Amino acid sequence: MPIAKVHRVAANAPDDVSGIEAAIASGRINAKGVIAVLGKTEGNGLVNDFSRGLATASLAALFRRHLPGDAAERICLVMSGGTEGGMAPHWTVFERSVSQGVDNGDGGPAMAIGRAHTFALPFEDLGRVGQVEQVAAGVRNAMMDAGIVDPNDVHFVQIKCPLLTAQRIAEADGRGVSVATRDTLKSMGLSRAASALGAAVALGEIDAAAIRDADIGTNWDLWSGRASASAGIELLNHEIVVLGMSAAWSGPLAIDHAVMCDAIDIEPVRAALARLGLATPGQLCEADRRRLIAVLGKAEASHDGILRGNRHTMLDDSDISSTRHARAFVGGALAGLIGHAEIYVSGGAEHQGPDGGGPVALIVDRSLA
Amino acid sequence: MPIAKVHRVAANAPDDVSGIEAAIASGRINAKGVIAVLGKTEGNGLVNDFSRGLATASLAALFRRHLPGDAAERICLVMSGGTEGGMAPHWTVFERSVSQGVDNGDGGPAMAIGRAHTFALPFEDLGRVGQVEQVAAGVRNAMMDAGIVDPNDVHFVQIKCPLLTAQRIAEADGRGVSVATRDTLKSMGLSRAASALGAAVALGEIDAAAIRDADIGTNWDLWSGRASASAGIELLNHEIVVLGMSAAWSGPLAIDHAVMCDAIDIEPVRAALARLGLATPGQLCEADRRRLIAVLGKAEASHDGILRGNRHTMLDDSDISSTRHARAFVGGALAGLIGHAEIYVSGGAEHQGPDGGGPVALIVDRSLA
Amino acid sequence: MPIAKVHRVAANAPDDVSGIEAAIASGRINAKGVIAVLGKTEGNGLVNDFSRGLATASLAALFRRHLPGDAAERICLVMSGGTEGGMAPHWTVFERSVSQGVDNGDGGPAMAIGRAHTFALPFEDLGRVGQVEQVAAGVRNAMMDAGIVDPNDVHFVQIKCPLLTAQRIAEADGRGVSVATRDTLKSMGLSRAASALGAAVALGEIDAAAIRDADIGTNWDLWSGRASASAGIELLNHEIVVLGMSAAWSGPLAIDHAVMCDAIDIEPVRAALARLGLATPGQLCEADRRRLIAVLGKAEASHDGILRGNRHTMLDDSDISSTRHARAFVGGALAGLIGHAEIYVSGGAEHQGPDGGGPVALIVDRSLA
Amino acid sequence: MPIAKVHRVAANAPDDVSGIEAAIASGRINAKGVIAVLGKTEGNGLVNDFSRGLATASLAALFRRHLPGDAAERICLVMSGGTEGGMAPHWTVFERSVSQGVDNGDGGPAMAIGRAHTFALPFEDLGRVGQVEQVAAGVRNAMMDAGIVDPNDVHFVQIKCPLLTAQRIAEADGRGVSVATRDTLKSMGLSRAASALGAAVALGEIDAAAIRDADIGTNWDLWSGRASASAGIELLNHEIVVLGMSAAWSGPLAIDHAVMCDAIDIEPVRAALARLGLATPGQLCEADRRRLIAVLGKAEASHDGILRGNRHTMLDDSDISSTRHARAFVGGALAGLIGHAEIYVSGGAEHQGPDGGGPVALIVDRSLA
Repeated sequence: MPIAKVHRVAANAPDDVSGIEAAIASGRINAKGVIAVLGKTEGNGLVNDFSRGLATASLAALFRRHLPGDAAERICLVMSGGTEGGMAPHWTVFERSVSQGVDNGDGGPAMAIGRAHTFALPFEDLGRVGQVEQVAAGVRNAMMDAGIVDPNDVHFVQIKCPLLTAQRIAEADGRGVSVATRDTLKSMGLSRAASALGAAVALGEIDAAAIRDADIGTNWDLWSGRASASAGIELLNHEIVVLGMSAAWSGPLAIDHAVMCDAIDIEPVRAALARLGLATPGQLCEADRRRLIAVLGKAEASHDGILRGNRHTMLDDSDISSTRHARAFVGGALAGLIGHAEIYVSGGAEHQGPDGGGPVALIVDRSLA
Repeated sequence: MPIAKVHRVAANAPDDVSGIEAAIASGRINAKGVIAVLGKTEGNGLVNDFSRGLATASLAALFRRHLPGDAAERICLVMSGGTEGGMAPHWTVFERSVSQGVDNGDGGPAMAIGRAHTFALPFEDLGRVGQVEQVAAGVRNAMMDAGIVDPNDVHFVQIKCPLLTAQRIAEADGRGVSVATRDTLKSMGLSRAASALGAAVALGEIDAAAIRDADIGTNWDLWSGRASASAGIELLNHEIVVLGMSAAWSGPLAIDHAVMCDAIDIEPVRAALARLGLATPGQLCEADRRRLIAVLGKAEASHDGILRGNRHTMLDDSDISSTRHARAFVGGALAGLIGHAEIYVSGGAEHQGPDGGGPVALIVDRSLA
Repeated sequence: MPIAKVHRVAANAPDDVSGIEAAIASGRINAKGVIAVLGKTEGNGLVNDFSRGLATASLAALFRRHLPGDAAERICLVMSGGTEGGMAPHWTVFERSVSQGVDNGDGGPAMAIGRAHTFALPFEDLGRVGQVEQVAAGVRNAMMDAGIVDPNDVHFVQIKCPLLTAQRIAEADGRGVSVATRDTLKSMGLSRAASALGAAVALGEIDAAAIRDADIGTNWDLWSGRASASAGIELLNHEIVVLGMSAAWSGPLAIDHAVMCDAIDIEPVRAALARLGLATPGQLCEADRRRLIAVLGKAEASHDGILRGNRHTMLDDSDISSTRHARAFVGGALAGLIGHAEIYVSGGAEHQGPDGGGPVALIVDRSLA
Repeated sequence: MPIAKVHRVAANAPDDVSGIEAAIASGRINAKGVIAVLGKTEGNGLVNDFSRGLATASLAALFRRHLPGDAAERICLVMSGGTEGGMAPHWTVFERSVSQGVDNGDGGPAMAIGRAHTFALPFEDLGRVGQVEQVAAGVRNAMMDAGIVDPNDVHFVQIKCPLLTAQRIAEADGRGVSVATRDTLKSMGLSRAASALGAAVALGEIDAAAIRDADIGTNWDLWSGRASASAGIELLNHEIVVLGMSAAWSGPLAIDHAVMCDAIDIEPVRAALARLGLATPGQLCEADRRRLIAVLGKAEASHDGILRGNRHTMLDDSDISSTRHARAFVGGALAGLIGHAEIYVSGGAEHQGPDGGGPVALIVDRSLA
C-alpha cells in the first residue's frame, strides 16, 4: 500500500538544500519517491524575487545528482517568495513511498498524494473559462492518481500555472487571437484566479456553468476553500498536486483543512486541529507542535480596505506591497496559534478562500501521539 | 474622586481628528481633562515618517481650539508610526475626570493616570546612567501624581524622550563634554533604552546600582515589563505618563499587563485578559472585545535572528526595516487573540520586555459586563 | 507694468516654511502677490506620501497669517513628492508684482504669469475628452490672464487636477453615469493624462478632434511639450498656472523650455539654456547657475522597458516604484548639466513629453549678467 | 605580445549568460583567456540581494562547461547588485589574449590586465592595518602580473574582499583575538574600506605610515582615486584585478580614469574622455559611444547630507537605502554625459574617491576611429 511522507526541512538560504541532501544521504528521503517540494524563500515574492529562481536551480541540481535521466524534471517545484514577519524559510518535501508491513497507520484512511500535468495552455485561454476547464480536468486526473474518489476527501490542491510574457502575447497576436491582458504582472493574478476556480469546479465547490470570463479576478464571491495557486514563468502547462485522505493509502499522516474568513480568523484552524487530534484551548503545546508536520495557507489584504470594521492600510502603502503586509500579519496570527513560524503562508489568494481570508491545510503525524 | 477615562477613536488619515472633535462636541470627551493622546499613525515609523508630524500638528491645533492659553501644550502627544499588516490607525485619548456620584466602579481600586515632566536632559547624559536616573525620578513623580504608592500597581509607563541632533551634539561639543553617540538615529534607540531602564529602576524591576553606561542598548538581559518609550525631536526633557490601579481612583476602568517573551508568546496576554475578567479559550468573543478598551504593546525582532529555534529574516531584509516586520507580525499574533486589529503595537523595544518580546498593557471597562 | 518674480527657497523639512516667512518679513516676497508655490517634498510621491499634506498645511497656515480673508485659499499650492537621488527639497514661489520704474528689463518681452480655475469637473468626465476640453478652456483663460496671445509664447503649464475617491464614484453611480475607472490610484494617472492633453490642445500641439477617450492614458504618441500635471484629492476643479513670455510684462525674468525625448536626453535642455544666454559646452559655471532661477521638469520610466536600446529595470522593481527610480535618474542627468540638484523633477508624466521623456522649463534672471 | 580584450554583454536576467555563451561559441571570447567578469545585476545590492548569487552560480556553471579541471574557479567573478534608475544589467568580460601579428595597436602602450590572489586574511585583521598591508602587497603582485612598473600607469583596481560571519567571528573568539566589528553588515564596509586604502598605498596615493586602524571607515580624507572594492561571503582572501597601460602590451584598447569630487562632478570624466580621444562639448555622439567599451564607477551619498550646499535626503530615507539612491543619481549624471546607461556604477565607496564622490575608469577601443 502507498504511504505519503512529508518532510519539513529548514533552509539557511535560498540555495541551501543541504538539509534535503542530508536526508537523502541518511535514507530518510528516497529521491525516487519525491513528487513535489514547496519552498518558502526569503525574497519579496514579487516580480523581482530572485530567491525563487536561485532556490529552484539549487533543488533541480540536487535532484539531478540523485535521479537518472530526466526524472528530476518531473518533480513539481513550487517556490513561494516572502517570509515576512517571523516566518522561517524552509522546504516541504512530499514523497510517495510504500508500506513496509507495519506502518503506524490505524487501518483507516491515510493521507494520499496525487499529481497531474495538463497540456500546454493556449495563451488566449489564460485567465479565462478555457483555463478553468483545463485545470478542473487536471485536478480530476490528480485525484485519480491519488486514488481519491470523493471530492470531499481532498484538502489541498496546489496548482502551478503559466503566465504571459511579451513573447507569448506576440505569439497569440500572430495567430490573430486576443489575450485576457497585455500586462504580464496582471497575467500572474489572472492565471492564479482561473486555476483556483478550476479547482473549485473539480471539487464541486462551484458549478462550472456559473463562471464567466468576467468573474475571473473580479467576482470574489466565487472561491475554493482548498486551492492554492502560484504562477511561474518556467512552464506553459499546469503542474497539479492534490493532497487528501484515501482508504487506498496507509501510514501515520493525516490531512484536514480550514477556511479563514479574514486575516485573523484562526478559530476554524483551531477546529481543524481538534479534528486531527490536536485540540487546544490556547497555543499548541510543544508535543502537539511536533505532531503538526506542515501548515499550508494563503493570505491577502481584503479588497475593501477593511478588517472587522476597522480600516487597514495595506493597500495604501506604496513602499511595501500588500502581499508582504498580508503574509507577515496572517503569519503572525497563525504562528500565535501554532506556536512556531516555520509555516508556509503564500500570497496572491485570488478566489482562494473568501476576500481577505484564505484556505489553510494541516498535516499531522498520528504516530507521534 | 478622580476617574480615568480612555477613548479609542478611529483615524481615517494622519490628520483626521474629526472623531475626537465630535467626541468633544458631544461631551463624551472633556478637552480640559485630556492628559495624553497615543496615536498609531500609518507612516513607516522611521526617520522619514511624516505621518507623525502631520498627526501631532493636527491634534495640537484641535486642542488649541478647545483650550485656553497654553493648556494644549501640556497634553502629552505620543505618535507611534507604523500600522503594518492589518493594524488600524487610531487615537487613544487618556482623560482625567471626576466621579459624578455613581461611577459604575466596584468600590475597589480603579485605573489611575499620573503625569510628570522632567527637567531638560543635558545632552551628554542621553543614553547614559544620568538619563536612567532622571527618568526614574520622573516615573516616581508620575506615580505620586496618580496616587500610586506600590510600584506593583503600575502596569504601563509611557515615556516620551529626547534625541540628539547635529545642533545638540555641537552644543555639547562646545561645552567640552562628550555625547554617547554622534549618530542621530542611534541616539533615538539609546534614549529609548535609557528611558526604559529608568522606568525599570523606579518600578523596582532592576537595581539602579546594576546599570552601567555600557549596558544601555546592549545588555538585553536588563528590561522592564511595563515601560514603553518613544523618542521625539520636539522635546528636550521627558514627558511621562503612568497607568496603574489605585484605591484613590474610581470608575469602571481597570488595567493589567503581560510580558511576551517572544513575538508569538500570546499566552501571558490571555492570562492577563482572564485576570481582568475576559477569560477565553480561543479568540475573544465580540462582547468581550467591546469591554477591552485598549491594547498597548511593543514589538521587535529578536537580535539573534531566531524565533523558537527557527531562523527569521527580519534583520536581513534591506528592503523593509525589521521594526516594520515585527509590528506586522506581532500585530497579527495579538489580533488573532483579541479579534480585531485596532491595537497599539509600537516598535523600538530596547529594554522594553525581553529580547524579541515586549510588554502588553490591557485596559478594560468593567461596566460593560 | 506687471513683473513676474520667482523665489527658490530651501526647505529643511516638509513643514519648514521659515525661508518663505523670512522673505516675507524682509519684504523680498509680498504675500499679496503670490500666485502659486511649487514644492518639492521628501516623501515617496505616491499614495501614502504625507510630506505633501504636511507641506500644504504649513504653507496654508503661513499665508493665512499674512493675508486677509480667504486670499490665502486662492494661492495654488502644488506639492510634488519625491526628492530621490541628490535632489534638494525646496519651494518655488511665483509672485506677480508691478514695475517700479526701473525694472532691469530689456524693454522686450518678459516672463508672464497667468492663472485660471475651472468649474468643478463632473466625475464622469475625469480621464475623458470632457476633461480635455475643460482644461483646454482653462489654459486659454490662464493665457488671457497672463496677457499671452500666441500659444508659442507659453513655456510651462502647471495643472492641478482632481482625482476619484470611493465617495465620488458612488456619487456618479447615484446619477447613473459611468466613471472612467473605479481604481482611485489609476484615476490620478487618467486625470493627469487628460489634463496634459487639454494643455496640448490649448497650445495647438494636438488637434482636439484627434483625441478620443481611448487615447487618454494609452496613446503615448500624443503629448504636450509644456504641460505639467499633478492630481490632488483636495480639489474638485482644476487650478491652472501658465508661464510664458509677454511684451505686456516687464522685469528681468525670462523663461524657455525644452523637451527631453528620453531620460538622458539633456542636449535639448543645453540648447534652451543657450537661447536664454547660458550657453555652456559642459556643466554650467557657478555664475550662470546663479542666473538660473528654476528648473521644472517631468520624469518617467519608458513603458517599453528600454532606454537607448538597453533594458532598464525600473518597471520590474517591486521594492521601489518606477516613479522614484525615474526622478532619481533624470534628476542626476539634469543636475550633471545644471551643476546643482535644487531642481524640480516631478513624476507621473502621462502625455507630458514623449514616452520615457518629459518637458523641462527653465527660468533665468537676465539682470544677473 | 599580450592583448587585453574587454567584452560588454547585455543580461536579460541575473542568470542570463546566453550572450557570453554565444560569444564563446562564435570565438569572439576564448574562455581560456577570461580573467574576470564584472556583473551589474538587478538586485538591491544589499544584504538580501540574491541576484548576485544567482548570477555567480550561472557564470560559474557556464565556465565549468568550457574549461577543464578547476580553471573556472580561477576566474574572478565580481557581482555588483543594483541597476537603479535606467542602468542596464550587463556583464563586462576581461580577457587576456595574444597578439596575432597585426593588432590594430599604435605601437605605444596598450591596456594591460593583471591579477593576484592574496593569502587568506586572518579574521582579526579585517578592517584593520593588517588588511591594508595585505591588499597593498596583492596590488603590487597584480601590477607585476600586468607588467606595469609605474603606479601612475594603473587606472583601475578591482578588489574582491572577504567579510565576517557569525562563524568566522566565533573562530576568532576561539583563538582569543578580537575582531574589528561583530556586525556582519558593517564588516563588509570595513573590508571594502581597508582594501581601498591598501590599493591607495600600493599606488602611492597614501603613505602606509599615515594609516591607523581608527582611520579605516571613518577618516574620509584618505582615499584612492582608482580603487573599487566589493565584499563577498564566498572568499576568505582577496582577488585583485589591476587595469592600466603598459608598453609590454599591445592591442587597440586604452584605459584612463577620473575622480568625481561629488555625485554630479562629471567634468573630470569629460576631461578623461578627451585624453582618450573622445573629446565632446556635450553628450557623446553615437560613433564615440561605440568606441567607449566600458565605464566603471563608484557612487555614494555624501556623509554630511549636503550636495553643493543643498540638502539631500538620501541618508534620511528609511524606505530606500542611500546606496540605491546614489547609484540611480550618479548613474543618471554619467549617462547624461555618456549617452547610454549600460554602465557599471557600484555602491559602497568607502575611501574610493572623496566623500560623496568616486573614481571612474574609462576603456576605449582606439581601432574604432
